[in-house]
Amino acid sequence: MAEPAGPGAAGGGHAGNGQAAVGGVRTTAPLDVTTWSCPVPLRDSPTVQMGHGGGGQMSGELVEHLFRPAFGAVGELTDSAVLEVGDARVAFSTDSFVVRPLFFPGGSIGDLAVNGTVNDLAMSGAWPLALSTAFIVEEGMAVADLGRVATALGAAARAAEVPLVTGDTKVVDAGHGDQVFVNTAGVGLVRPGVDVRPGRARPGDVVIVSGDIGRHGVAVLSCREGLEFGTAVESDTAPLHRLVAAMLDAVPAAAAGAGGAVHTLRDPTRGGVAAALNEIARTAGVGVELVERQLPVPAAVADACSLLGLDPLYVANEGLLVALVPPEHAEEVLAAMVARPEAAGARVVGVVVDRHPGMVVARTGLGGTRVVDLPAGEQLPRIC
Amino acid sequence: MAEPAGPGAAGGGHAGNGQAAVGGVRTTAPLDVTTWSCPVPLRDSPTVQMGHGGGGQMSGELVEHLFRPAFGAVGELTDSAVLEVGDARVAFSTDSFVVRPLFFPGGSIGDLAVNGTVNDLAMSGAWPLALSTAFIVEEGMAVADLGRVATALGAAARAAEVPLVTGDTKVVDAGHGDQVFVNTAGVGLVRPGVDVRPGRARPGDVVIVSGDIGRHGVAVLSCREGLEFGTAVESDTAPLHRLVAAMLDAVPAAAAGAGGAVHTLRDPTRGGVAAALNEIARTAGVGVELVERQLPVPAAVADACSLLGLDPLYVANEGLLVALVPPEHAEEVLAAMVARPEAAGARVVGVVVDRHPGMVVARTGLGGTRVVDLPAGEQLPRIC
Repeated sequence: MAEPAGPGAAGGGHAGNGQAAVGGVRTTAPLDVTTWSCPVPLRDSPTVQMGHGGGGQMSGELVEHLFRPAFGAVGELTDSAVLEVGDARVAFSTDSFVVRPLFFPGGSIGDLAVNGTVNDLAMSGAWPLALSTAFIVEEGMAVADLGRVATALGAAARAAEVPLVTGDTKVVDAGHGDQVFVNTAGVGLVRPGVDVRPGRARPGDVVIVSGDIGRHGVAVLSCREGLEFGTAVESDTAPLHRLVAAMLDAVPAAAAGAGGAVHTLRDPTRGGVAAALNEIARTAGVGVELVERQLPVPAAVADACSLLGLDPLYVANEGLLVALVPPEHAEEVLAAMVARPEAAGARVVGVVVDRHPGMVVARTGLGGTRVVDLPAGEQLPRIC
Repeated sequence: MAEPAGPGAAGGGHAGNGQAAVGGVRTTAPLDVTTWSCPVPLRDSPTVQMGHGGGGQMSGELVEHLFRPAFGAVGELTDSAVLEVGDARVAFSTDSFVVRPLFFPGGSIGDLAVNGTVNDLAMSGAWPLALSTAFIVEEGMAVADLGRVATALGAAARAAEVPLVTGDTKVVDAGHGDQVFVNTAGVGLVRPGVDVRPGRARPGDVVIVSGDIGRHGVAVLSCREGLEFGTAVESDTAPLHRLVAAMLDAVPAAAAGAGGAVHTLRDPTRGGVAAALNEIARTAGVGVELVERQLPVPAAVADACSLLGLDPLYVANEGLLVALVPPEHAEEVLAAMVARPEAAGARVVGVVVDRHPGMVVARTGLGGTRVVDLPAGEQLPRIC
């Protein structure tokens, strides 16, 4: 995993320095680096740590060793389940959102709540049909602020053209919440003949990312810590179901074969591209090789990560997907992607291999190879 | 609405009296009546009040004046939506659970999380197919306690025979949550030919409740405040989908006519039977007349409510349903209900009338009539 940003990384030298500009970074508030990343997580702690919510190894261990035995679950506990309902296959997914601040450059908790669940459904090859919303509001929150969150959520749902059909509101006493937490669940319809899941990844598959890496995490961090980087970084939050539909349409069913030409889709949110590819590699029992210089990392994201000691591969994205496509169809799928505004910067960044199953590696610019491990906890708490 | 329990109602006289036994009530901790009920809610407050989460008028106003305009919703924002998916009708529902304490006599937050969503689906005439779970955990919660909650939830799902298929876990920093909040969403299949909803209530329909009123609220309250009533009151939390199936089976489709013999079902949770019937009356534009002495209020619940100044009609239930059935089918449906353990105490408690549309009244033991209004806020915060 990436190293936590220590006091030496950036903040120690100018804590309390309200308007310092160092190395292209402008601070508008005293820096407090202790909140930038979790302490090294205590994996055998008797209490819940922030890292248990980070989407990395600790999250996985909580699912494997606590939730799975408790639930008596036998199958995969995936981001999105597919149910047989009559003749239809219905995708079903849920996510809670606890991001701070509620509004950040490029989006809000309302955008994440809609787009996050829409994207979880889309990553199963499903077209989203409806969303539920459930608000847990802290007593004393300004009604106007709650209204802004609800308005942003409604606008995101209209932009995605997915109706909000059912909901719930609970209020907890002041001091036992944090303004508002939002849960969305969604149902979607998986198109006939399509089978998109991590288990379909095969050696030889081309790894495509749909655009810039790391924007969401850096946008939230910069806002939260009062940093301004040379160029403003905005969250990439966006619904990806139309992009996925275009990708599935790119290769005719007859040519694509059983299950379709897109083998695997994942939206690399918490834990970033690294966590998404590690989970695919482990589930499918394959290796993944990335080419570092192919990764589309915007200059402002690269600068911020370099300064803060973060690795862009581990930073959360909210409008990005990773696709695994067999080489014979990669060109058609990539062409369909770049034709859409959500994926104008799509490109091939690696390949699936039969070597080192379960492991992701990156070829560095110097010709070496480094292991891109599953992060233990999380670099940036409460990023979504 | 019922009057909030003021200091004079019970507690003032023996605050700090660790083991007082007064009028059949045993206290095991100093009484703090300030937490028993909300202050009279400020309906035009600029901040969110506890009453906004109570399932009464304030909750309704939040939905009408904040969420509905923000979401641009045009239809009803119901507890459970019904979607057309292929040839099937899919019910979809969500609820968050913030009850304190996490474990109480007769159940836990895990039971509520499963049974609450199962019941919301069942009230649409749907058979639940799958549930999602989403946990928001406070940093520092004992992993063992989280395990107990997850185990209770898993056991409830197995008892209901509804699989948990997808999930999410977020962690918030210590002091910004309250151990754990649990959201569940669910999808279910509405059986063909069945149309169960508030809008189908018709004058002449018989009002049936499936059993004792007020147990859940009193159980949680007694546990939270360290009270012991003469007889221990346990929560009624239970899944009701099998009961609903038996009710729908009671009258053959040919005899029942279009939509089926059961017109309306509601589980009277927050706000109790009063809130459930008020919502039905308003939605359908009908009146409801209850006969007070027919209401099945267990003696221990009646004692507790009398002492605390609560009205059992407003106390939450978690394993109870209210059914509206046309008189020609009431006998068959009631017979099917009492044959099941969940509804052995089912009985007729009133009738739907064309007088006073939108209003619920109760005939009292003295021959008078009182209005059973929609509560403003809630008698008992964080009851589910």
